[in-house]
Amino acid sequence: LGSPKLGTLQEKGKTQFTFNGSQWNQNFFQVVLDLLPALDGDLKTLNFLQEVVDILLAYIVESFDRSTKVIDFHYPNELLQRNNWELSDEPETLDDILISCRATLKYAIKTAHPRYFNQLSTGLDMVGLAADWLTSTANTNMFTYEVAPVFVLLEYVTLKKMREIIGWENGRGDGIFSPGGAISNMYAMLLARYKMFPEVKEKGMSSVPKLVAFTSEHSHFSIKKGAAALGIGTESVICIKADERWVWIIHSDISHGYVPFFVSATAGTTVYGAFDPLIAISDICKKYGIWMHVDGAWGGSLLMSRKHRWKLNGVERANSMTWNPHKMMAVPLQCSALLVREEGLMQSCNQMHACYLFQQDKHYDLSYDTGDKALQCGRHVDIFKLWLMWRAKGTIGFEAQIDKCLELSEYLYNKIKDREGYEMVFDGKPQHTNVCFWYLPPGLRYVEDKVEKMKRLHKVAPTIKARMMEYGTTMVSYQPQGDKVNFFRMVISNPAATFEDIDFLIEEIERLGQDL
Amino acid sequence: LGSPKLGTLQEKGKTQFTFNGSQWNQNFFQVVLDLLPALDGDLKTLNFLQEVVDILLAYIVESFDRSTKVIDFHYPNELLQRNNWELSDEPETLDDILISCRATLKYAIKTAHPRYFNQLSTGLDMVGLAADWLTSTANTNMFTYEVAPVFVLLEYVTLKKMREIIGWENGRGDGIFSPGGAISNMYAMLLARYKMFPEVKEKGMSSVPKLVAFTSEHSHFSIKKGAAALGIGTESVICIKADERWVWIIHSDISHGYVPFFVSATAGTTVYGAFDPLIAISDICKKYGIWMHVDGAWGGSLLMSRKHRWKLNGVERANSMTWNPHKMMAVPLQCSALLVREEGLMQSCNQMHACYLFQQDKHYDLSYDTGDKALQCGRHVDIFKLWLMWRAKGTIGFEAQIDKCLELSEYLYNKIKDREGYEMVFDGKPQHTNVCFWYLPPGLRYVEDKVEKMKRLHKVAPTIKARMMEYGTTMVSYQPQGDKVNFFRMVISNPAATFEDIDFLIEEIERLGQDL
Repeated sequence: LGSPKLGTLQEKGKTQFTFNGSQWNQNFFQVVLDLLPALDGDLKTLNFLQEVVDILLAYIVESFDRSTKVIDFHYPNELLQRNNWELSDEPETLDDILISCRATLKYAIKTAHPRYFNQLSTGLDMVGLAADWLTSTANTNMFTYEVAPVFVLLEYVTLKKMREIIGWENGRGDGIFSPGGAISNMYAMLLARYKMFPEVKEKGMSSVPKLVAFTSEHSHFSIKKGAAALGIGTESVICIKADERWVWIIHSDISHGYVPFFVSATAGTTVYGAFDPLIAISDICKKYGIWMHVDGAWGGSLLMSRKHRWKLNGVERANSMTWNPHKMMAVPLQCSALLVREEGLMQSCNQMHACYLFQQDKHYDLSYDTGDKALQCGRHVDIFKLWLMWRAKGTIGFEAQIDKCLELSEYLYNKIKDREGYEMVFDGKPQHTNVCFWYLPPGLRYVEDKVEKMKRLHKVAPTIKARMMEYGTTMVSYQPQGDKVNFFRMVISNPAATFEDIDFLIEEIERLGQDL
Repeated sequence: LGSPKLGTLQEKGKTQFTFNGSQWNQNFFQVVLDLLPALDGDLKTLNFLQEVVDILLAYIVESFDRSTKVIDFHYPNELLQRNNWELSDEPETLDDILISCRATLKYAIKTAHPRYFNQLSTGLDMVGLAADWLTSTANTNMFTYEVAPVFVLLEYVTLKKMREIIGWENGRGDGIFSPGGAISNMYAMLLARYKMFPEVKEKGMSSVPKLVAFTSEHSHFSIKKGAAALGIGTESVICIKADERWVWIIHSDISHGYVPFFVSATAGTTVYGAFDPLIAISDICKKYGIWMHVDGAWGGSLLMSRKHRWKLNGVERANSMTWNPHKMMAVPLQCSALLVREEGLMQSCNQMHACYLFQQDKHYDLSYDTGDKALQCGRHVDIFKLWLMWRAKGTIGFEAQIDKCLELSEYLYNKIKDREGYEMVFDGKPQHTNVCFWYLPPGLRYVEDKVEKMKRLHKVAPTIKARMMEYGTTMVSYQPQGDKVNFFRMVISNPAATFEDIDFLIEEIERLGQDL
């Protein structure tokens, strides 16, 4: 009775079995009966997992090797045909599984590669990776202390530490790790609405006046996405331009009968890396009694740097803050925190008292059963990788890593700002690691017809980017913005990048773009 | 220039360095300078990761060993003191990191343990685990084909397969893997509202009539949580009792001026494992033009079983379905799918056209850039573990695993339904693996005062559960429900469980409860 029971199994021959009344070939039983929880599956399991780990270790070492490609790019239809990705009724063998692992990595992006600059999240931290492997192995859920005692405590310890760094007294307040910055921002908007109109939870938006939220023009799209989801509507999100006066606009909306309930200031915009003036904004929020949120998904990590944290001066006045350690702190995806100044609000806003999960007569301190304050029911363990990396580096290790990325970014800025063929998209030194620029190929530099020039320039970045991916040498993002044609947005969050990689990027842009 | 640059580093002595103007001890440099991306960090990285893997492999083997504890339980304050969990400015050494990994696992719940029955998600699949380790190593994001070519294709292939299994023609439709069933259900409600009133996206709830949603009494709390978040309000969610007629209630609400927009039928309720009658509900939804959602977070996986899928007959008529492979299919956490019958609706409901992520002039087929249909911006890769497990087992492997859990559950039901000291909470054979029962200790069986008896019975399950955790022998959930005092809710989703483990559970309940 100690062996796994899988229905009625009758051996018929060497490769044919009758199972639950049907005939199947032997493959089916290899995986199910060889690996744990199969009786005596220990050794085969260890061999199998070790083979997978060997594949992963080779991939890791290769990822940091500058002579390898960042990507072995293929178009979707081509990639679909280069391998058998289909799912079928019958099982594969363990050897096939290893082949699938190799194929998956062969066509993956090497996000750890020192020349991968494509997103705000780049790099691969070895301690963070080890922590994520442990997290997968522990395979549990964050809803109660009962099922995740250590992880719940580590979340408590880490959120408190982050609130201390924000500057909230004794690290008091609340918070949660959520599945990404967009959801963290949505939480903040939800809390702001509930704080002002607690009846909205039961009665919905029909019980509240016409709400309006404010954010800066270059804020992240998740503010509008959140407003759409929460039934507030995207039209109720007022985007304020950099040169407009917030106070005037907010005052004007109030006199038109709207109720401003939420301001989202951005600490590190996605494209320019700009920081909204938090102190000035907090004064306005205080004056009108509006919830102040700081979206520091990208720029929040600068709080870890004694040299750069002044850019977030005033953040301690905020009611809530989004801060994604998976971006500038290079914690593996996904790791996003929402920090909240008021204690207890998340719980009262979101709790539904499900008695099958949050029993009130348990034998331990129930304040550690934090699941009812989440929008999620099951919640992935995102804390351990951040906590373990923090232990490994200390705060000063994160600081050094962040300072280095900003140093590299300044190096890039200084290198191209007066270089022939380059134009900067915005004036002055970048506030974060975002360096936005146009590259003008030689043939385009002296075109006089402005319309023609812009039309051609608009195609330069996409073409160079496509070539980068086809050669697989590097990856960097581009986009248009307002009336500005496509430009490169270089960001540096990859701890593996060096001055030499910045030099390489510039040489590569020029090599790939010279004929355009 | 090829070496990592970390600000200005000056050696001062053997254990003291000046770094960015401050003095630090040597520890700081061990982790940062020893491991990749450090120059020549390959060997040290491989050694470090292998040491972590060895710790994990030992933990895995131990987890399946019935002679080990499911949990080494300590109260929160005690656990906080048993180890140093604090974060500090200064770094730890790599040896300390390994110690932290061991301590974390020592106090973790062994969710793979054959006697862990506490949640709907239990067990640890070896192929799923290997896939999750690969996912962590690939460390990327689901928003575009550009950064996750293989994973985006695998999501496409898998969602299509799941829609085929639901019974939608040629597997057509849409879907997404979301961070858990609660969010999947919220997506469905969001889509239903948008489908009926597309202007709600821009104009918010003030532009639409008073909405009302319907679900069954025993549905998951996330339906109300979603309604609260989306600005609909929990009072607009009507919970219909098992013996009430849906059609009458819906009709009555319409005549009172409400607009019914959403019905969430449950396929496998959390506590009882009951299935709503989907065909009857679909007729009502069709009659009134209401979006029909099936919350199959728990029961959806029964679609994989030829023997049990009839319980979801009618699901093919639904507009959307939540289906969590991380529950009954034992895929590692987190893996939840929302499947949607109408193509393109998710995109139009949620898209915000962020031009820095979803550039329209890329060189490949943009239909694979699926990120804009998500509520999230960055989205964790949850697909690979499901896909790889499906390859390893085939559909028939999942079927065998699911059928076995239901067989075990029937075994438990038959064993206790007439056994002295047991009372079943609901009549008849369970539809899913949920077996709900009271255990009455000998001293309680003949108490005549009903109030006194119920009062004492209410404390039995919590006390036995607390003792289970203190002994660490097994874990099973309990809860009250309506006017019913605390009862045990046994669920079986753990592929490691056997008939012997069911026998053990019963013996253990009797051993721990005999004196109560």
